[in-house]
Amino acid sequence: MPVHVVRFEHQNETRWGVLRQGRISPLPGRYASTGELIRQVEVEELTNVHGDELALDSVKLLSPITRDQQFVCQGANYRQHMIESGMDPDAKHFNMIFTKAQSCIVAADSDLIKPRQVRFLDYEIELGLVLRRDITGKVAVTDANLHEFIAGVVIVNDYSARDIQIPQMQFYKGKSFRTFGPVGPYLCLLQKNDMRYLKELQLRLTVNGEVRQSDSTANLVHGPAETLSELSGVQDFVAGDLIATGTPAGCALSVPSPAKQRIAALLPEHIKWKAFLKTQAGRSQYLKAGDLVEASIRSADGVIDLGVQRNRVVEQA
Amino acid sequence: MPVHVVRFEHQNETRWGVLRQGRISPLPGRYASTGELIRQVEVEELTNVHGDELALDSVKLLSPITRDQQFVCQGANYRQHMIESGMDPDAKHFNMIFTKAQSCIVAADSDLIKPRQVRFLDYEIELGLVLRRDITGKVAVTDANLHEFIAGVVIVNDYSARDIQIPQMQFYKGKSFRTFGPVGPYLCLLQKNDMRYLKELQLRLTVNGEVRQSDSTANLVHGPAETLSELSGVQDFVAGDLIATGTPAGCALSVPSPAKQRIAALLPEHIKWKAFLKTQAGRSQYLKAGDLVEASIRSADGVIDLGVQRNRVVEQA
Repeated sequence: MPVHVVRFEHQNETRWGVLRQGRISPLPGRYASTGELIRQVEVEELTNVHGDELALDSVKLLSPITRDQQFVCQGANYRQHMIESGMDPDAKHFNMIFTKAQSCIVAADSDLIKPRQVRFLDYEIELGLVLRRDITGKVAVTDANLHEFIAGVVIVNDYSARDIQIPQMQFYKGKSFRTFGPVGPYLCLLQKNDMRYLKELQLRLTVNGEVRQSDSTANLVHGPAETLSELSGVQDFVAGDLIATGTPAGCALSVPSPAKQRIAALLPEHIKWKAFLKTQAGRSQYLKAGDLVEASIRSADGVIDLGVQRNRVVEQA
Repeated sequence: MPVHVVRFEHQNETRWGVLRQGRISPLPGRYASTGELIRQVEVEELTNVHGDELALDSVKLLSPITRDQQFVCQGANYRQHMIESGMDPDAKHFNMIFTKAQSCIVAADSDLIKPRQVRFLDYEIELGLVLRRDITGKVAVTDANLHEFIAGVVIVNDYSARDIQIPQMQFYKGKSFRTFGPVGPYLCLLQKNDMRYLKELQLRLTVNGEVRQSDSTANLVHGPAETLSELSGVQDFVAGDLIATGTPAGCALSVPSPAKQRIAALLPEHIKWKAFLKTQAGRSQYLKAGDLVEASIRSADGVIDLGVQRNRVVEQA
């Protein structure tokens, strides 16, 4: 059975606890990072943690992923999102990888600060995979041994300044502004038999109550086992590191059709980007100060419920 | 005056030391990370460290940047390299930023392992800036206060698998393979009056003795003060973090002319990339097993000398 854990501040201390029916049973141990928690605690043991319960609303929840963990992301990884973006998911032959600065990781309910220079602020709900163990060389990950590599899952919102991310080509800067990476509220730790849920989680994001994104992880193009197999041949990971698996269709970003992109490529750079920005200016879906973004991920049977992220958009002071 | 320091293994211990005329005066303190060294040691004090000297060749040198520090990179940041790449340095209006995985950081003299699936392995000598202090909000960095933010400089080689980096668009994966980030051998710590050297360092890279890259940091497009001012408004940094400032002209990579790029954009993706790879296959400059890459950075007066990196290319076993 999955176990939902939270990281929180209570009486000036940072603690971890098991969440059940809206109440927290704090863990006796102190774990400075997500990796420490995962290395030192067995999921089976957590099912036995009871007592000394706190009400969820009596504590301040923190991101269950600490900022000392890597924040690696996949791009264009849902079928419908790729089709919208003018790509053919059946022809795509690589797994697009980039990173976000770890300093953008914030608690699930943080305000989203819209930087003064950013016009086109967009949301991206994503399932975050949390690694179980250190990886220092290439490993063959399959659906059968996936539980040895993945400890759990969280909600990630990969907020993006489209007017920086897209014209500057490398995604890092436009996706790394402070507060652009809410994580949580709950870290759901999985056991071997829970791994099947990774292919049937429902993602849902609303802005001011209107549904913008709604999809299932069934539609992931490059799944967790394939992704870990490839990345383990490139770089090291440690327990607790975070891999955000890409977002479904429904973002504010409007990608020109392949035909329009070919025409745009004939234009001088500054005219091409002026046209791009003009198109985005016509999209009312971009986030404005005061907007409320709510994101949730759960299994249809409710066994996995990663909670709800609520981010209010505020202008940078 | 600048002070050159090294990190090394000696008698099964990891130590730091001051380097003078090929001999190392070990520091009494132990510093687990580059950030700890920089926070705890004043450059002025280091000029007084003497005695208990070790011969440079009696120790095993390590990267002076530890793997727990961020590895942030600038792209297309030398005038001639931009012109070669079909860009106009005077028209460029953004500072391209991406990251490399920290696990690719290795000692300066490490073998460069060519992954089996990589055909087009390229070199990129770069000046690495090492940060002096934590940054948690936007700061105005100028040439006048740059010494408050930059502790020192190192050589970085930003090795790149062009057949992954370019067709996959996001640079991270193709630049993050293990051994793709040699750093050092020396970390040169600077004082206020040494900052002028940042604009007059000579970079030189040879392959099997043949000069491939040779330029001066005078030709950097986005300088350190401008870059730190902008990035401080995006993300946090800690002391010891590394910013690689981009590479001069002379890489193996052949970028099609702007006219050819416009024509290529009209082609279906797979044909466009087939043509790109065919062009690269005609470039004999790409690295092969057995090649020796040597990279050095120094000031014309020899006051700053970051040493020589020597990387032998070996096929992945």
